[in-house]
Amino acid sequence: MTGINGYIRMSEIESFFKSAFSVDNVIFGFDGSDLKVLLIQRGAAPFKGKWALPGDLVYPNENLDTAAERVLEQLTGLRDVYLEQVKAFGAVNRHPLGRVITIAYYSLIKISDFLVTPASFAQSASWHAVSEVGELAFDHNEILDTCLKSLKRKVRRAPVGFELLPPKFTLTELQQLYEAILDDKLDKRNFRKKILSMNLLLDLNELQEGVAHRPAKLYQFDRDTYEAFVAKGFSFDL
Amino acid sequence: MTGINGYIRMSEIESFFKSAFSVDNVIFGFDGSDLKVLLIQRGAAPFKGKWALPGDLVYPNENLDTAAERVLEQLTGLRDVYLEQVKAFGAVNRHPLGRVITIAYYSLIKISDFLVTPASFAQSASWHAVSEVGELAFDHNEILDTCLKSLKRKVRRAPVGFELLPPKFTLTELQQLYEAILDDKLDKRNFRKKILSMNLLLDLNELQEGVAHRPAKLYQFDRDTYEAFVAKGFSFDL
Repeated sequence: MTGINGYIRMSEIESFFKSAFSVDNVIFGFDGSDLKVLLIQRGAAPFKGKWALPGDLVYPNENLDTAAERVLEQLTGLRDVYLEQVKAFGAVNRHPLGRVITIAYYSLIKISDFLVTPASFAQSASWHAVSEVGELAFDHNEILDTCLKSLKRKVRRAPVGFELLPPKFTLTELQQLYEAILDDKLDKRNFRKKILSMNLLLDLNELQEGVAHRPAKLYQFDRDTYEAFVAKGFSFDL
Repeated sequence: MTGINGYIRMSEIESFFKSAFSVDNVIFGFDGSDLKVLLIQRGAAPFKGKWALPGDLVYPNENLDTAAERVLEQLTGLRDVYLEQVKAFGAVNRHPLGRVITIAYYSLIKISDFLVTPASFAQSASWHAVSEVGELAFDHNEILDTCLKSLKRKVRRAPVGFELLPPKFTLTELQQLYEAILDDKLDKRNFRKKILSMNLLLDLNELQEGVAHRPAKLYQFDRDTYEAFVAKGFSFDL
């Protein structure tokens, strides 16, 4: 087998058409204190009983994005959720059944939107704190790490939170989200000064209700500013 | 074929192992005025005679990054060049010979380093101004556009130029590189003020030689600052 770009002889080409590919979804959520990831427990070999990222082989007539959306919907019942392709993982021996490359996607969702759909395999799905994830099936630890790094880079370059926080939130909740993603404590005064200077938040002139401590002010994202920052990017030097 | 994550029956799994995958490299260069991309003219079907991105099917026992490096080396003779994976493209009908998904990489190289290696297929390779690329084979226009967008985002978030400019360069040359990538005119005074304030450049206390106009000062990148910015990112609001 020699050559490149069509110089391979047709008689040799069949040996290349023996691979499969899959999608794997890294679905992040936030419960108010921890950054979490949705994992499933495998019910069949290979890696039976191991925790794994939700994923599946891509059907021969299915586009990649469609496959990632299908896996997410089968697992959570959620449609029209933002999924971003992060990277293809294709180490030769990453799958025991043959050559399978996988395309990793990540997604941010509100944990409260997550519904177990009893008819699906999702009974075995559950949220795990990212910091406490153990050994996963396949190369899924590597995939999770890559997506987590991508998310950490993202929070410094574009706003996040819209997909992860409730519609109304306090500055403390927003800071906790950033701290959970960055796995780092942030200076409260500095964080507030920076985030408020961006005109990213609308002060709702409302206070929290039903809390034991002194109620804090509630904010929501200014959708226009938020989307402008997503498109343009910024540097949030935390 | 039902199920997910190993719930597919083994008797059905063979139907998934009928795909191939390839790598395609978007190799950008800069000739002092235009941003260019290295294309090859296809010598065999499909798309015989059409210009295309250099790429190849991945061998069954070859890792993805290795395949991308192999294609680049076969084409240019260059090794140890930075290649970044950008995206997997997997539309169902993107390849006439069967289901082939391709993983796109991009690379930045100095055009002067490019050597046609006569023993390879590279005789048919040449540099094309990105702004003048016509219809390419397969979905290669989409792949080129995606990599170009990625490069445009990159220049706003991290320094570029180290891989594209000669070791010593003038501020005008650096500005021309940015203008070529962004496909936009930049204000000279504003550009210089911003780039000099970053401590990214070392003033060599040398002037250009052998130029007809008044010789300009020569600079080189401060490697430490450059790499710190690459790692940390910045917002270069041009």
